[in-house]
Amino acid sequence: MKYLSLLIVFLILHSSHSFSQERPREKGIIIGVLPTGSLNAITDVPGVKVGHLTKIEGDNIRTGVTAILPHGGNIFQQKVPAAIYVGNGFGKIAGTTQVQELGNIESPIILTNTLSVAAGIEGAVRYSLEQEGNENAQSVNAVVGETNDGYLNDIRGMHISSDEVIQAIKSAESGKVAEGNVGAGTGTVCFGWKGGIGTASRKLPESLGGYTVGVLVQTNFGGNLQIDGVSVGEKMGKYPFRDSMEKSDGSCMIVVATDAPVLDRNLERMAKRAMMGLAKTGGIASNGSGDYVIAFSTAEGLRIPYVLKAQTLEKAEFVQNDDMTSLFMAVIEATEEAIINSLFAAESMTGKDGHTVSKLPLDQVMDWMK
Amino acid sequence: MKYLSLLIVFLILHSSHSFSQERPREKGIIIGVLPTGSLNAITDVPGVKVGHLTKIEGDNIRTGVTAILPHGGNIFQQKVPAAIYVGNGFGKIAGTTQVQELGNIESPIILTNTLSVAAGIEGAVRYSLEQEGNENAQSVNAVVGETNDGYLNDIRGMHISSDEVIQAIKSAESGKVAEGNVGAGTGTVCFGWKGGIGTASRKLPESLGGYTVGVLVQTNFGGNLQIDGVSVGEKMGKYPFRDSMEKSDGSCMIVVATDAPVLDRNLERMAKRAMMGLAKTGGIASNGSGDYVIAFSTAEGLRIPYVLKAQTLEKAEFVQNDDMTSLFMAVIEATEEAIINSLFAAESMTGKDGHTVSKLPLDQVMDWMK
Amino acid sequence: MKYLSLLIVFLILHSSHSFSQERPREKGIIIGVLPTGSLNAITDVPGVKVGHLTKIEGDNIRTGVTAILPHGGNIFQQKVPAAIYVGNGFGKIAGTTQVQELGNIESPIILTNTLSVAAGIEGAVRYSLEQEGNENAQSVNAVVGETNDGYLNDIRGMHISSDEVIQAIKSAESGKVAEGNVGAGTGTVCFGWKGGIGTASRKLPESLGGYTVGVLVQTNFGGNLQIDGVSVGEKMGKYPFRDSMEKSDGSCMIVVATDAPVLDRNLERMAKRAMMGLAKTGGIASNGSGDYVIAFSTAEGLRIPYVLKAQTLEKAEFVQNDDMTSLFMAVIEATEEAIINSLFAAESMTGKDGHTVSKLPLDQVMDWMK
Amino acid sequence: MKYLSLLIVFLILHSSHSFSQERPREKGIIIGVLPTGSLNAITDVPGVKVGHLTKIEGDNIRTGVTAILPHGGNIFQQKVPAAIYVGNGFGKIAGTTQVQELGNIESPIILTNTLSVAAGIEGAVRYSLEQEGNENAQSVNAVVGETNDGYLNDIRGMHISSDEVIQAIKSAESGKVAEGNVGAGTGTVCFGWKGGIGTASRKLPESLGGYTVGVLVQTNFGGNLQIDGVSVGEKMGKYPFRDSMEKSDGSCMIVVATDAPVLDRNLERMAKRAMMGLAKTGGIASNGSGDYVIAFSTAEGLRIPYVLKAQTLEKAEFVQNDDMTSLFMAVIEATEEAIINSLFAAESMTGKDGHTVSKLPLDQVMDWMK
Repeated sequence: MKYLSLLIVFLILHSSHSFSQERPREKGIIIGVLPTGSLNAITDVPGVKVGHLTKIEGDNIRTGVTAILPHGGNIFQQKVPAAIYVGNGFGKIAGTTQVQELGNIESPIILTNTLSVAAGIEGAVRYSLEQEGNENAQSVNAVVGETNDGYLNDIRGMHISSDEVIQAIKSAESGKVAEGNVGAGTGTVCFGWKGGIGTASRKLPESLGGYTVGVLVQTNFGGNLQIDGVSVGEKMGKYPFRDSMEKSDGSCMIVVATDAPVLDRNLERMAKRAMMGLAKTGGIASNGSGDYVIAFSTAEGLRIPYVLKAQTLEKAEFVQNDDMTSLFMAVIEATEEAIINSLFAAESMTGKDGHTVSKLPLDQVMDWMK
Repeated sequence: MKYLSLLIVFLILHSSHSFSQERPREKGIIIGVLPTGSLNAITDVPGVKVGHLTKIEGDNIRTGVTAILPHGGNIFQQKVPAAIYVGNGFGKIAGTTQVQELGNIESPIILTNTLSVAAGIEGAVRYSLEQEGNENAQSVNAVVGETNDGYLNDIRGMHISSDEVIQAIKSAESGKVAEGNVGAGTGTVCFGWKGGIGTASRKLPESLGGYTVGVLVQTNFGGNLQIDGVSVGEKMGKYPFRDSMEKSDGSCMIVVATDAPVLDRNLERMAKRAMMGLAKTGGIASNGSGDYVIAFSTAEGLRIPYVLKAQTLEKAEFVQNDDMTSLFMAVIEATEEAIINSLFAAESMTGKDGHTVSKLPLDQVMDWMK
Repeated sequence: MKYLSLLIVFLILHSSHSFSQERPREKGIIIGVLPTGSLNAITDVPGVKVGHLTKIEGDNIRTGVTAILPHGGNIFQQKVPAAIYVGNGFGKIAGTTQVQELGNIESPIILTNTLSVAAGIEGAVRYSLEQEGNENAQSVNAVVGETNDGYLNDIRGMHISSDEVIQAIKSAESGKVAEGNVGAGTGTVCFGWKGGIGTASRKLPESLGGYTVGVLVQTNFGGNLQIDGVSVGEKMGKYPFRDSMEKSDGSCMIVVATDAPVLDRNLERMAKRAMMGLAKTGGIASNGSGDYVIAFSTAEGLRIPYVLKAQTLEKAEFVQNDDMTSLFMAVIEATEEAIINSLFAAESMTGKDGHTVSKLPLDQVMDWMK
Repeated sequence: MKYLSLLIVFLILHSSHSFSQERPREKGIIIGVLPTGSLNAITDVPGVKVGHLTKIEGDNIRTGVTAILPHGGNIFQQKVPAAIYVGNGFGKIAGTTQVQELGNIESPIILTNTLSVAAGIEGAVRYSLEQEGNENAQSVNAVVGETNDGYLNDIRGMHISSDEVIQAIKSAESGKVAEGNVGAGTGTVCFGWKGGIGTASRKLPESLGGYTVGVLVQTNFGGNLQIDGVSVGEKMGKYPFRDSMEKSDGSCMIVVATDAPVLDRNLERMAKRAMMGLAKTGGIASNGSGDYVIAFSTAEGLRIPYVLKAQTLEKAEFVQNDDMTSLFMAVIEATEEAIINSLFAAESMTGKDGHTVSKLPLDQVMDWMK
């Protein structure tokens, strides 16, 4: 039986995905005032790579893994400044305390489902141990986030293996990022509609440093949907505590990347602003939400080598407090847009126990947007 | 000279204020989906009192004090569960660490200008020491928040005295709350327009506990103004980093009251949601913002007596985690509305060095809202 | 080869361990002023169970698992109030953010080695999913701590399986607790000597509530060893930054249990005091330390049911702030003693690559103690 | 009456104090293993200045102010990296949130009594506003700590004025620091004996960077006194919850200075270690303690100018995580010694309502130390 079902497994890696559908911005929904990067994706931040492993198997498995690599080199040897902000901590994210204590990330960032965090850690750790140059590593801090896809996915089956996590990491690429029902977003639900992976970016003008901020989200949360200010949730009578409303619980994982040379304290401040972008989509960070923001800087001058000679000072040039505001604004806008992008890209899905979640009705929504 | 100017001091206490102008909701701007309390004010939470002292003197003094009393009794003897959340900590708020450590507030909450925090503390402490029954008190934790009204007010003059703070406390009343250019909001600026004090409330249906959540804000921050989703800032070309834009720095003090029996940990979670309401108005929590949320519960069963017999257990009935979501949503909605209320109520003002800040052009705004 | 080595595996479960050696207190080292519980162990707190799985295999495997159960029932269905304090966050502990957000623990607490946290999570999650009554559980927050036993153990081999974690959980018992080279302490090193598991307790007099505080530690850290105030490290010339000194990095996991009815905020304060007990042994929380304290209350009246009817208030009687000091003192004393107990119980061990770590020379130490 | 009593006011400024008594180290009590700086004082950190204002007036006033200046220039224009750690937050310290958000301190650090925090803020703010070069300052974050000297001092009288705070600031000097009953330590009580101001320092060997760490404490807390490991409290039967024991509540303010170029995150970690030094003296951070640690770096390369041209990167060379451990150890040792120093320097005092607090009986103590 297990073997039979394997025949219809879809293990979709990133490169096989098509990018045909129009994104909100192409449909005329312009969120915020700052320009986007060329792809309007987290990969607009040079060096960042994303890999999805999408696992759709039989009737009940609808899940996956998304790996975000801060750069294409050996992350353990060349750590990046990082911070994690807890929007609401009903979640199983791993790796937070070391990031907060040391101010850096030393492994690929993994997103998956709630009960596969162990597989995520094991995969990221094994990947790091086996990577060339890390033969002496005896301690690896894996950063693994999750949301609960248990409505569409047989989450109790713990169907993600550490090998699949490594596959997702190894498949990571720069360039376009697949959105919607892919990777860690395969089985997620958002505002009562099909959620998934979304991404967006902002590029500051040269007068503000010319930096890029990219955001990737795994949307699985509830609330009172607003799209660029339009109260879609209210118009549809679909919001928390309405008789007709599904449970509003759920979670959102948010990853923020920037090439701006920002140290950990100010990265934490940037991370905090991502929740403000989420708020603008109508999210309410319900009691059951695991809302976390992982932020890192790819600036080469801020890399933290695994081994630096003792009593050698770190040298860095970094953005001062007073110049952070435009980066905050970029985070807010890109997060809001990434969430909306996830909803537009996701498609209707039927999964576990025949549960079906519909795609956001774009035609109706676009009518309201005018 | 000092004596002369005193002749034209306006020390306006709360009761003398008129409430004639229409509030946004009366104009048809309905923010969110939950019903308001009867006054749509923080004072809908039974027992909460608000007092404003408005100080307009000569050409250069435009400041004041707002006092919020969690209940009408002796707060030092009957402390209330409380929490403070730091949205962005560029501010001089006093009293935070004790609130976080002990989970309660033991004095009136004072809002004023940045350089008058000392007067605020001295006033709240003296008020508490002198209150009947507190003859043995040797330690009082004053909670004093502030925003910087230095554009319209001669803030360096430190024009608030501790006596005036005590006046504000003693003038506190239940019932309607004056909004706009009053109390601590006298000289504040918000989204480039005149800001001030605003308030709003939400009343949950009985099926969700029937609790009231009230919010009061002192608005002095920048961003990209959105009113119930309408991008007013963009339509006006008035947002951060536009050539024409004034500095977007500034701050917002937010006070959240509820009669729901919520303990300190969940009050902190409620406080955190207020920043999500602020985000929906277009606030970006800029680098220079002092954005703080002070939340407390007035539930009588949760009062913490100054002296409880040693080895006596506290007894309490309180809202469980799983029932918090509707309270979160109420905080988000009431905060968003309170901020918009402050903008509608505020009037144009000329102050220090002839600086003028205009009232939000309501006619134009109302056109866009349709 | 793998099969051969299995012939000499020692998978020692708790019940097979002997408790013959004298503990410091029996030798006359009386730490602090408060009396101990009857076993001077975390299991003096009624209901708490501890299980060790000790894995000694071939030349290179020296590791294990220790499971601490807050009570003998279904922890997922009957969660306990809890808090986690980060002494120094260079560690891979999992489950912290949910404990901090919700104020409770819902699974057995697992301690193991740094690279086996994934196995720890998978084991605790699988155990919880499979436990009778949890058929509908779709989300389990595993709390897994670790220290790095890589000097004596082939840690890169990731030799702990989730099955072994479940074994440790299922073997958990009340009563005496094995100390030293057992469970998660099998391969640890402390102050340059063999560390391991240690435990101790304090019982407050009835006039202070009569509560018990129990502590269990996994000692793997460095510093300048002091035993009940005697500077053993200095006398031996064995302390950080001496020429002769081994690296002082390392970690300490500390678990604090109490039957006092203490809510999460005050449990966090208790947890914080455990680091003060560690300090008294000479620990310095070096840069590379993962020092974490997990504290929980077993008080039945504070259990948090998995499902409580909506809009039902929690009812609780709990220790007031003013009565916490004696509990703080109990934590400090029991932590100090538990660490010293781990050193006295641990035996010399040879492991990976022939590395040997010696037992603390008790005869010499006892001379100094007089 | 008021005028009469003024005749016997002692307003003692720092320079008038004598330094005749032997300090513990001179008596042979050698705490820790690291060498001290030349003065064994916080002023061993080049540039740091300390000023005490001691106010002893009539029968009931026993209080004062201690000002610590991170450097001798304009601190507002040249801010220093800083962090504040809350050991236990039952205190009224002001200025914490801005330090944590921005990672710097911009004014003199003031210590005084609990109910004079307002005067402390007003003094530090006025001093900063009036300082040459700060004519445009409209916002000053004063960092003011306190402990409660209400047993010996008429604290409700709020006898410190902002002018006296400015006097303390202006009297600050480098060089020797008066200890004991001076400044903010005038009326404090520690372990049931007379407490006060203490200071100590450590100088790392050149191989560890050659940095200096200096600590200044205001001791006003309880516990089970240990002096370099000797259980003085137990020997005297003077510890918390003994029948004969005075209340163990109280507080300790700790200021940590270093010339090591350490950024704010690692300064916070240093601050955290100061509580470990306090623990080694027997402090228990009781419920009623306001235990705070303020840490800053004087490294010139890390100064943060008030105005830096927009889009100019900060440039810095700073200590890496891996080199922090020796600085942690220095903080622990210097804090422990500073506290003991305060007890040795303090003299018996009679104050409010005839309350008397005795000096630690040094002869007896020195007997035990042998």
